[in-house]
Amino acid sequence: MPKKPLTRLERVRAEMAAHGLTQLIVSDPTTIFYLTGLHIDPGERMYCLLLSADGSARLFINRLFGTPDVGLPVVNFDDTDDAPALMAPYLDCHKGLGIDKDWPARFLLRLQELPVAREYRVGSICCDMVRAVKDEAEQKAMIASSKVNDDCMAEFAAAVHPGVTELELAEKIKAIYKAHGCSGVSFEPIVAFGEDAADPHHQNSARALKEGEMVLFDVGGVYDHYCSDMTRTFFTAEPTAHQREVYELVRLANETAEQLVRPGVKMCELDAAAREVIARAGYGEYFNHRLGHFIGLNDHEYGDVSSACRIEAKPGMCFSIEPGIYLPGDVGVRIEDLVLVTEDGCRVLNHYPKEITIL
Amino acid sequence: MPKKPLTRLERVRAEMAAHGLTQLIVSDPTTIFYLTGLHIDPGERMYCLLLSADGSARLFINRLFGTPDVGLPVVNFDDTDDAPALMAPYLDCHKGLGIDKDWPARFLLRLQELPVAREYRVGSICCDMVRAVKDEAEQKAMIASSKVNDDCMAEFAAAVHPGVTELELAEKIKAIYKAHGCSGVSFEPIVAFGEDAADPHHQNSARALKEGEMVLFDVGGVYDHYCSDMTRTFFTAEPTAHQREVYELVRLANETAEQLVRPGVKMCELDAAAREVIARAGYGEYFNHRLGHFIGLNDHEYGDVSSACRIEAKPGMCFSIEPGIYLPGDVGVRIEDLVLVTEDGCRVLNHYPKEITIL
Repeated sequence: MPKKPLTRLERVRAEMAAHGLTQLIVSDPTTIFYLTGLHIDPGERMYCLLLSADGSARLFINRLFGTPDVGLPVVNFDDTDDAPALMAPYLDCHKGLGIDKDWPARFLLRLQELPVAREYRVGSICCDMVRAVKDEAEQKAMIASSKVNDDCMAEFAAAVHPGVTELELAEKIKAIYKAHGCSGVSFEPIVAFGEDAADPHHQNSARALKEGEMVLFDVGGVYDHYCSDMTRTFFTAEPTAHQREVYELVRLANETAEQLVRPGVKMCELDAAAREVIARAGYGEYFNHRLGHFIGLNDHEYGDVSSACRIEAKPGMCFSIEPGIYLPGDVGVRIEDLVLVTEDGCRVLNHYPKEITIL
Repeated sequence: MPKKPLTRLERVRAEMAAHGLTQLIVSDPTTIFYLTGLHIDPGERMYCLLLSADGSARLFINRLFGTPDVGLPVVNFDDTDDAPALMAPYLDCHKGLGIDKDWPARFLLRLQELPVAREYRVGSICCDMVRAVKDEAEQKAMIASSKVNDDCMAEFAAAVHPGVTELELAEKIKAIYKAHGCSGVSFEPIVAFGEDAADPHHQNSARALKEGEMVLFDVGGVYDHYCSDMTRTFFTAEPTAHQREVYELVRLANETAEQLVRPGVKMCELDAAAREVIARAGYGEYFNHRLGHFIGLNDHEYGDVSSACRIEAKPGMCFSIEPGIYLPGDVGVRIEDLVLVTEDGCRVLNHYPKEITIL
């Protein structure tokens, strides 16, 4: 008889044990959604799931959001209450306490003032490492979301014409995602024309596309709660030899890294392999960001594909592979796919062509 | 000769002195924009302005965002650097350190581990209290932004017809703000029909408007960087005596509080005055949120108009006055204006009518 897979909460408790934590404050609303199915956007108000090694789990929710029934006890409070102090009775002050990496300082400083624990340390890794490995339902959702992104990219490419502005295309992109059933975008679409593409953090402008310019789309939609994310760089005229060289280098870097993805490979090894392709050709300094990031319910999840990240790939992990070369005032190319680690390699979730395409 | 007004940085340093702080980490990107004019959206990356009582100010910026020249020294770092540790040489470990209330725990816990200060406490109040008092340029911007909101509200009201859905109206609202020159919305527009209006944190749905239902709009746009925010509740048929009673109570609560706004009045007094109007009529428990919030570059800024807030109104402060009554499954009414405190009273920034209106 096959073993029943662990629940998500059980997987988090196993990570807590591995990290020597007996109590953990989960405050990321997306992680609380992941663990309980409860979706609350608390704004500036405190909102926590307190997990203990003994198996208990308790929600702390401002009364404004009601007392939802997700099978867990709820502690309600008002705007005028000292909300962090309400957690004290459920904490063991002789033990360490795990804190979400993003928890606002005002809550943490208040707990430290009480105090409620022996020490405080970042504990969200216990949830992040569980979320990093997608379960079966999530893998299906990631595949479906990237399929929608492939379909949408074809429509984005078809919408390119001289005179259109970056902002107009960005608006159109958002409408196309909606029409394909997305609840929204993974992030504000990046649309960069010509030398704008040479800025990896370009902000869309009212600049119109001139004949023959290159067009970079870095885009993703949220489909059934899961984010897609893909970058393609298109031509609108026959590329020069220089443009072709840069493009093909980026493509080679992308494909080189994707071919290395399998269980056991370290994220820094993937980053190094892509970087090596670009550096060997003398463009190393113009690939000035990490190779990728983990993705799922959020566009950017815990886990870098960077030189600093020693996480080993495991089946179910999902991240981006997005090398780029940015020559200021000249050419910018980025090519990005999402990959899902399988038992013996990886599945590239994007199938939109990567060959040089002239629109 | 009139005294030259203090610069924003000088005003923050005066607050630091008043709060006994000689060093302060400012990490809210909007506050950094307010103080330096620099606009960076750092995502998950560290981004700080370190202020010292001696007059020095230094920016810590990921190299990905360049080395902007705003007349302040910049410390650049890479994704792989231990960014919080780079602040250590500029901090006095024998003194207390002010921390932004929203600074992510991962940065704060790292600083505490080093350690770099005698104690750590929430210090963003030094910026928040300065931002709360709008200078002349900001007051003009707030007035202009609310004027746009008044104009837009007339178009939202005109777009109401049986069969339209909440989501459709929300999309239309966003397009209307853009057409009026807004860069975006202050927050996702709230459109609530019928009993949906009785949920103060309602999420827009695909539900269509039925003949005779009430319509609540809680909406705002961002115009020249400054947020507007207004709520109006409309009828689409002659109100019943019950609906009229609830509506007029909310209007009276709104106007009672607005008439009390002047320098020296405490926020809790405003909240109490509005609440008293509603409670006297027996609906106290159905006004289940604070009366208002401060607003400016952000929709929600530091400062509550609530029973817990003892801030005294000062000329230049800007906040919302938004009482409501929410009778679940029955009627929901909220009426909200922004007010700007003047030397001898206040200027109500919204002029869209508050009388019972049947669309």
